[in-house]
Amino acid sequence: MMQRSGRKRNKRPQTSTSLKQLPWSQVKSPYKPFEILHEGQIDAICDTAYRILEEVGMDILHAEAKEIFRKAGAQVESGGDRVRLDRGLIKDAMAQAPSSFTLHSRNPVHNLDLSLGNISFGSVASAPNVSDIEKGRRPGNQDDYRNLLKLCQSLNTVHFIAGYPVEPVDIPPRTRHLECVADMAILTDKVYHAYSLGKERITDALEITRIAHGCQNWNEFKQKVRLFTIINTSSPLRLDGVMIEGAMEMARHNQLCIITPFTLSGAMAPITVAGALAQQHAEALAGMTLLQLVAPGCPVAYGGFTSNVDMKTGSPAFGTPENAQAAMIGGQLARRVGVPYRSSNANASNCVDAQATYESQMSIWSAVMGQANMVMHGAGWLEGGLCASFEKLIIDAEMLQMMTKFLQPPEVTEASLGLDAVKDVGPGGHFFGTAHTLERYETAFYSPILSDWSNFENWEENGSKTTTERAHLIYKNILNEYEQPVFDIALKDEINDFVARRTAEGGVSGDF
Amino acid sequence: MMQRSGRKRNKRPQTSTSLKQLPWSQVKSPYKPFEILHEGQIDAICDTAYRILEEVGMDILHAEAKEIFRKAGAQVESGGDRVRLDRGLIKDAMAQAPSSFTLHSRNPVHNLDLSLGNISFGSVASAPNVSDIEKGRRPGNQDDYRNLLKLCQSLNTVHFIAGYPVEPVDIPPRTRHLECVADMAILTDKVYHAYSLGKERITDALEITRIAHGCQNWNEFKQKVRLFTIINTSSPLRLDGVMIEGAMEMARHNQLCIITPFTLSGAMAPITVAGALAQQHAEALAGMTLLQLVAPGCPVAYGGFTSNVDMKTGSPAFGTPENAQAAMIGGQLARRVGVPYRSSNANASNCVDAQATYESQMSIWSAVMGQANMVMHGAGWLEGGLCASFEKLIIDAEMLQMMTKFLQPPEVTEASLGLDAVKDVGPGGHFFGTAHTLERYETAFYSPILSDWSNFENWEENGSKTTTERAHLIYKNILNEYEQPVFDIALKDEINDFVARRTAEGGVSGDF
Repeated sequence: MMQRSGRKRNKRPQTSTSLKQLPWSQVKSPYKPFEILHEGQIDAICDTAYRILEEVGMDILHAEAKEIFRKAGAQVESGGDRVRLDRGLIKDAMAQAPSSFTLHSRNPVHNLDLSLGNISFGSVASAPNVSDIEKGRRPGNQDDYRNLLKLCQSLNTVHFIAGYPVEPVDIPPRTRHLECVADMAILTDKVYHAYSLGKERITDALEITRIAHGCQNWNEFKQKVRLFTIINTSSPLRLDGVMIEGAMEMARHNQLCIITPFTLSGAMAPITVAGALAQQHAEALAGMTLLQLVAPGCPVAYGGFTSNVDMKTGSPAFGTPENAQAAMIGGQLARRVGVPYRSSNANASNCVDAQATYESQMSIWSAVMGQANMVMHGAGWLEGGLCASFEKLIIDAEMLQMMTKFLQPPEVTEASLGLDAVKDVGPGGHFFGTAHTLERYETAFYSPILSDWSNFENWEENGSKTTTERAHLIYKNILNEYEQPVFDIALKDEINDFVARRTAEGGVSGDF
Repeated sequence: MMQRSGRKRNKRPQTSTSLKQLPWSQVKSPYKPFEILHEGQIDAICDTAYRILEEVGMDILHAEAKEIFRKAGAQVESGGDRVRLDRGLIKDAMAQAPSSFTLHSRNPVHNLDLSLGNISFGSVASAPNVSDIEKGRRPGNQDDYRNLLKLCQSLNTVHFIAGYPVEPVDIPPRTRHLECVADMAILTDKVYHAYSLGKERITDALEITRIAHGCQNWNEFKQKVRLFTIINTSSPLRLDGVMIEGAMEMARHNQLCIITPFTLSGAMAPITVAGALAQQHAEALAGMTLLQLVAPGCPVAYGGFTSNVDMKTGSPAFGTPENAQAAMIGGQLARRVGVPYRSSNANASNCVDAQATYESQMSIWSAVMGQANMVMHGAGWLEGGLCASFEKLIIDAEMLQMMTKFLQPPEVTEASLGLDAVKDVGPGGHFFGTAHTLERYETAFYSPILSDWSNFENWEENGSKTTTERAHLIYKNILNEYEQPVFDIALKDEINDFVARRTAEGGVSGDF
């Protein structure tokens, strides 16, 4: 038998003991997805997307990918990168894509089913900076990277690690992915993401994940989807070589690629929501089609990231009305294609304040009402993605828990309708002491981790702490109580050995 | 011809010139209301409500009202206040209630149509305290009262004055309503609310409103709905005498009464959402039925305010998941009855921070998705209603504008789909300079009044202002630029004369 590490043994995934959070569960919406556009309008966007791919085409910056497209019948510009795809080719390829699947974690409790109506929230990902109100804003580094991972492991509402919560620039670029992926595999037992920056990095991430999952060989590994990557197109209409390389490697290992066009309306896409979505749809289809040609039946998902830029400055804006509409319509488009859908919880505020919160709420509501299967950047994103905030992570966790509870419709039964309680209490009475209340009061309502419902005088007496200040204390507490999740020590050693060996070899060959 | 007052003459309603807000418009949702419960569950709640009224009954603390109920066939406890209502009686009475109507303002531009799908946002109302970040929290007073009215007049997204934004306790209680209603009629030209604290106050408010609308007599006045009042039940199951008196007077003048049960789940109503809603429904039906018996066909609306208390402290909580569900289901119940629906934008935070914002967003989204016709406390509410905040008012205005824009679905036309623009720009290009963009860039996207989309460096250079700090500057600017809306000087004089006369008489007879 293999030995287990961690201070506590043979236990369920750790959650910090003083944090009274909701239990782990995937969020399931019992409602129909909210639809902004009617079917005819979705038809029009899809038709425009096909025409973009047929009449304009995409630049595919990778020789092998172009060859794969050519063999499948696409029209590939001789001596160039332009690939034009016929809608018949796309439809045939996409017919192979599974409509849903399960993302497996090394701890099966944390598996994520991406079926329609199931919603999962991820961590913030890829921020170059990190901040908290104590030490301010600073460049990403390994300490903060690890602390953010620990928080995401501890918070049940963070269902997956959406990428490096912050980019640890103090680790050399050629070996950074090794330490980072190993940390995700060891410090958390949730599903995580690997960056498709060339084949080498993805190969290393696949290897660490294979070990973490205890797979003896690649055949065993491929039986389940265990790792995912986000492929951003270089909008407009371009797929970069390093991204393609990583994605093809993932597809060949039956791992999930989410194609997310970077269609900021007014800059990299048309200035209209409809036009930006048509381009988004074209780019997503092109990427997913390529992967279905590479490995028919491989898991793919549709990423929606269309927002708008501030036309005065060119800055990207998030959580805007247009962003919310695009996020919901993106879900309609993904369901039309028949693959899982990814959205985001985004905002463009420079500090953890009302704007950060209302823009995030616009994102969260649109993702949830539009039923995104995966909500990237669910917790901790600030500054349009340029900063990961410790306090925002806690605020987001509270907001995501509230949505989780909101999505559980109230029971309507004779007991819950409580006619007898009303009879007991009668006009002018109160319900505090009645049996109906006493039986239920401990679990009746959502219990917040962050919100303060005390009255003004008590709040003042307790130091007049803002939500952000309270979030600061909470994140510190969670970190203090963090314990590494249970892990076979042999597997952990194997991962560490692999990282040491690859680091000694110098890591990958390119610095990008 | 009557003379007009105000610095600028013969102009449309004033809006401050430097504020680039959305134009005045009532919000219309093109979508179906979001439904939390299915029809069978709504049936069950309605049936329980009927059983509450049949088997438990309500205490009606008003002799004339009891007599009206008795004559209509209700079972009135001899020598007591308990009134039991049969569902047949209720259904017959409610069949008289109009399903929708228009709330008329003295400026017809600001009329509000309460048809299904139309959403109107009101000011904060009835807060005993007021705050801004410069002077802190202080008891309500006339200066702040007037300033809040001026802000609500200036902000197009505030469609109506939901009550006194703050209670000006520096005005004696017996004459306070005179000055306050006159201020609403003169400083704003939007629909406003009068408190039903006995017959005298309502009579004065009706008189001021009659004058403001230039009606020569009561018959002319009654042709339109021009004033509204909120009747809170004293939950559980009690209707107070002073409220009833005011409400009956309003009904007899064909003015709107919104019956809003104060059903805080776990305290004044059952601890379950279903039970609290059944009681809410019973109380709302009882109140509306009374008014239909008093004045068949008078305008009534269904108020939903069900939230929960914090079971640890008994403090009311707002913007909770249960509050959001109850707000949406309240809309389903109101539509079942066939009358307009009122909800709220509420939160329980003690300062203008993330919690204030996310709880408000939960309220706003549920009110909008559940299609409340009137959203009370739309802008400026803090501390569970115990404080009106100048900065929160601006933050709310931004959030409400965002929802207004969100509810306008994107155009899907050949032009907006922009295939030609995509062809123009092609792979790897950018859309900033293309004709499709240049034609649209000034109006393409929602333009915020408060959100700051600048990058971190520029934001820091501009003083690292939080959203709340920016909101402070904005509200000051709006006040500086405020101009009284156009008003016939003769009518204004008549109102002022009336107020002076009634004040000289000593106002109303009771201090409550």
